[in-house]
Amino acid sequence: MDTLRWENGVLKIIDQTKLPAEEVELCIDNIEDCREAIKQLKVRGAPAIGDAAAFGVVLGLKEVKANDFDAFYAEFLKIKDYLASSRPTAVNLFKSLDRMDETVRKNRSMSIPEIKEILEEEALRIYREDIDTCHAIGMNGAALLREGMSVLTHCNAGRLATAKYGTALAPVYTALEQGIHVRVYADETRPLLQGARLTAYELMDAGVDVTLIADNMAAYLMKQGKIDIVIVGCDRVAANGDTANKIGTYGLAVLAKAHNIPFYVAAPTSSIDLGTPSGSEIVIEERSPVEITKGFGRQTAPDGVKVYNPAFDVTDHCLITGFITEKGIVGPPYDEHLKALEY
Amino acid sequence: MDTLRWENGVLKIIDQTKLPAEEVELCIDNIEDCREAIKQLKVRGAPAIGDAAAFGVVLGLKEVKANDFDAFYAEFLKIKDYLASSRPTAVNLFKSLDRMDETVRKNRSMSIPEIKEILEEEALRIYREDIDTCHAIGMNGAALLREGMSVLTHCNAGRLATAKYGTALAPVYTALEQGIHVRVYADETRPLLQGARLTAYELMDAGVDVTLIADNMAAYLMKQGKIDIVIVGCDRVAANGDTANKIGTYGLAVLAKAHNIPFYVAAPTSSIDLGTPSGSEIVIEERSPVEITKGFGRQTAPDGVKVYNPAFDVTDHCLITGFITEKGIVGPPYDEHLKALEY
Repeated sequence: MDTLRWENGVLKIIDQTKLPAEEVELCIDNIEDCREAIKQLKVRGAPAIGDAAAFGVVLGLKEVKANDFDAFYAEFLKIKDYLASSRPTAVNLFKSLDRMDETVRKNRSMSIPEIKEILEEEALRIYREDIDTCHAIGMNGAALLREGMSVLTHCNAGRLATAKYGTALAPVYTALEQGIHVRVYADETRPLLQGARLTAYELMDAGVDVTLIADNMAAYLMKQGKIDIVIVGCDRVAANGDTANKIGTYGLAVLAKAHNIPFYVAAPTSSIDLGTPSGSEIVIEERSPVEITKGFGRQTAPDGVKVYNPAFDVTDHCLITGFITEKGIVGPPYDEHLKALEY
Repeated sequence: MDTLRWENGVLKIIDQTKLPAEEVELCIDNIEDCREAIKQLKVRGAPAIGDAAAFGVVLGLKEVKANDFDAFYAEFLKIKDYLASSRPTAVNLFKSLDRMDETVRKNRSMSIPEIKEILEEEALRIYREDIDTCHAIGMNGAALLREGMSVLTHCNAGRLATAKYGTALAPVYTALEQGIHVRVYADETRPLLQGARLTAYELMDAGVDVTLIADNMAAYLMKQGKIDIVIVGCDRVAANGDTANKIGTYGLAVLAKAHNIPFYVAAPTSSIDLGTPSGSEIVIEERSPVEITKGFGRQTAPDGVKVYNPAFDVTDHCLITGFITEKGIVGPPYDEHLKALEY
């Protein structure tokens, strides 16, 4: 089952909140359901959110009856804002919507039905580029891996976070295709357990040797010399290399540095946001306390307890050994090297 | 409700596996149930386990019919071994059993009924000493706290881990009695969520301002300057100061050092094991994968996934700012200073 695909004007996604217990495919044919799917993490992962939002625009425009461009564009902007308000941290969402916006404006001389068609093509192009990008990240990142190495990863930056291949896990899949077997330790990733539910699931499915740990065990594995490299994904990379990713990433980066373990971020250039100078400008989404107190069917904390639940943190660029992008592996100084990727 | 108490030859404990949803008191009147209660973490926390094991000996000896000392002592040793095999890491269990052993041998000239009585008194003495010790740890540790400070703690080293007051939380309770209000951030502490279930519960009950976080959020709090001091408990302190405690403690200590935050271990001298030269000699208990894959009442990881689930880790002495003991706060060099505590 694909993470997401576009079929006859319908967005089909695997409902990730149901994994690994059930494999349910949702058919989304309207913008409201698309936004909810993003908000509730039925589809998640920065690149996949970008893809879904582009298709969300197409779904939203189906209902738009405007006859002239200005009326159409006004409706488009409402749709764009509506989708943009689903989740604040991953930049791919906004870049995807901006790209759709640019496509509308570039084609203002066309008829409304033609513009709608062009936008559907653009959404499909974003989707296919995601696949090509992840494939290239896999090829570039595989060069870091050797037979028998152990990779630690956090959250899910695998095929379930993208249209295909994944970002952080793409090098593992590519290595496997090349006959290089690595072992993956997957942080379960509280509160929503994307590591336990998604990363363990897709790696087992692909025949990769995966061991699940609780997040707080990573340091002890590092101390025992059991981790050779850390590879994580990202939701937004600032111009200086500071990186927002799933909560817990920053701690892993500090621990990796303390144990002299290389720490890589797999980053499609679509996740690099040169408009954000540093990590301190990135908005961090805070989510419901219930994710921590009642995450899995039963209450595990006292009624009314105060909870702090940031969904992401920011890892300082100085803790990052390199970014694995579709254009190659990039090392410091990041303010120069990330900018250079744009050209 | 008390963590544990001894009433008319019956050990009464609050079943900690049921907290916070239900407050259930178990009446334990035989050694098998006592060992199971320790093994299944119905009673847990190094000092409380030591107390429970001493009472377990008394419960086991009730059934012993031997008339002469040698036969009695042979039965005693079986009981001791049986209880010793419940959990391997916390030293208090073994120290408690050794103390009961010594008491038997010192009183070999007494009648069997007299020895049984003396052992019950010794178990009660161990229990009362635990209370006094924790009270003194609270007094000593409170000196580290100032109004408005934020304390981060891991797992539960509070009153539920001891007969009363707790170890790591004792300074917080004593400070409160002195009119000093601190805020506590409690790591939920995967996999068994002692932080969410027990620490949050007992601190709320005591009127302490507590905020629950997932374990992987601690680093981000530190980065934001929200943590002034880390205080944790311990299961065994080696002669050089290396400290076994709940899995995740080592990572916190590395993170605290990286952020220049003082990291204290609250340690009754009963948790200090001068017979263990360093952390590498401490046996680390590994527990069932199910704690990670099915911990919250429903399965949250794929069937058959490999899991690594160490219950404890070892924190290097060089990461520890000081030990808060009942005899005062002890700084490095630990090989000298911990030894000096014995006298």
